[in-house]
Amino acid sequence: MPIILGIDPGSRVTGFGIIQVGNGLPANKPKYITSGCIRIKQDSLDLKLKQIFDSVGELILEFKPDEFAIESVFLSKNADSALKLGQARGAAIVAASHYALPVSEYPARKVKQSVVGTGAADKSQVQHMVKMMLGLKINPQADAADALAVALCHANTSQGLIHLQGATTIARGRLR
Amino acid sequence: MPIILGIDPGSRVTGFGIIQVGNGLPANKPKYITSGCIRIKQDSLDLKLKQIFDSVGELILEFKPDEFAIESVFLSKNADSALKLGQARGAAIVAASHYALPVSEYPARKVKQSVVGTGAADKSQVQHMVKMMLGLKINPQADAADALAVALCHANTSQGLIHLQGATTIARGRLR
Repeated sequence: MPIILGIDPGSRVTGFGIIQVGNGLPANKPKYITSGCIRIKQDSLDLKLKQIFDSVGELILEFKPDEFAIESVFLSKNADSALKLGQARGAAIVAASHYALPVSEYPARKVKQSVVGTGAADKSQVQHMVKMMLGLKINPQADAADALAVALCHANTSQGLIHLQGATTIARGRLR
Repeated sequence: MPIILGIDPGSRVTGFGIIQVGNGLPANKPKYITSGCIRIKQDSLDLKLKQIFDSVGELILEFKPDEFAIESVFLSKNADSALKLGQARGAAIVAASHYALPVSEYPARKVKQSVVGTGAADKSQVQHMVKMMLGLKINPQADAADALAVALCHANTSQGLIHLQGATTIARGRLR
């Protein structure tokens, strides 16, 4: 029953979402574990990045995810914001690889497609669908919803792979 | 006698340079310890960033620097290269802060000004002056020279601070 950590990195707020999928659960009903956001309170760049690295590390040690999913970035508003986003991504990804988690990247369009059904969905649609898919009572905070969405996208994609390699395992899960 | 680790991060090659400055040495004669470059051989982004993080960590554990210096970035060619550079910077800076090194950033113009005497110096002038200042027999490789240059810039800047706070210490060093 793999546990997936999704991360939506940012230089001011980094969202996280943790879900569980696998044999013991219906294939299309991932289990919500936790989500939230890391609000960067440090002033200096090195302490900001250390806060991301340490916080992602603490999530990994506490919830013991098996896989790590993050949105890939193709376009960015400008070079300055791309640099800041890159630094935050670097700190988050290094935390994952430091703890030997396999890292998967998904384009934003594919994440939205996977959760809402269209690559052009807006933030509120992503929040709503994440809430529905995980049976949450309230909408998760926007960055946490994005992190949960990339974890769900990874769950769908890797379940697709398992499906190809060993369909019976998934089918057994579905009968429960 | 503080040891300074300078880093010139990049997504394909990350230069490093280590120098020593301080009381036992003439104030304007830093001692060369080592330099070189980390050539990123991994294919996937997470393993690339892990290679930077681990290699910088190994340098810190082997040479036990007291301080870490890196060029700050104000302008970048485009958003895509800024993102890649940001990720490499994130991994390198997180390695420094993980080992509790204080991190200092210097604009490229200030680094060149400090080493060559003009902010508009080209790469070969930086290589030449780094070679002269550290008494090296051959020009260091370009990325290693940039890393040594930022370490030298930090040495000059922090010596300036020591100078203000305790000029006698520096003066004693100069008499040797």
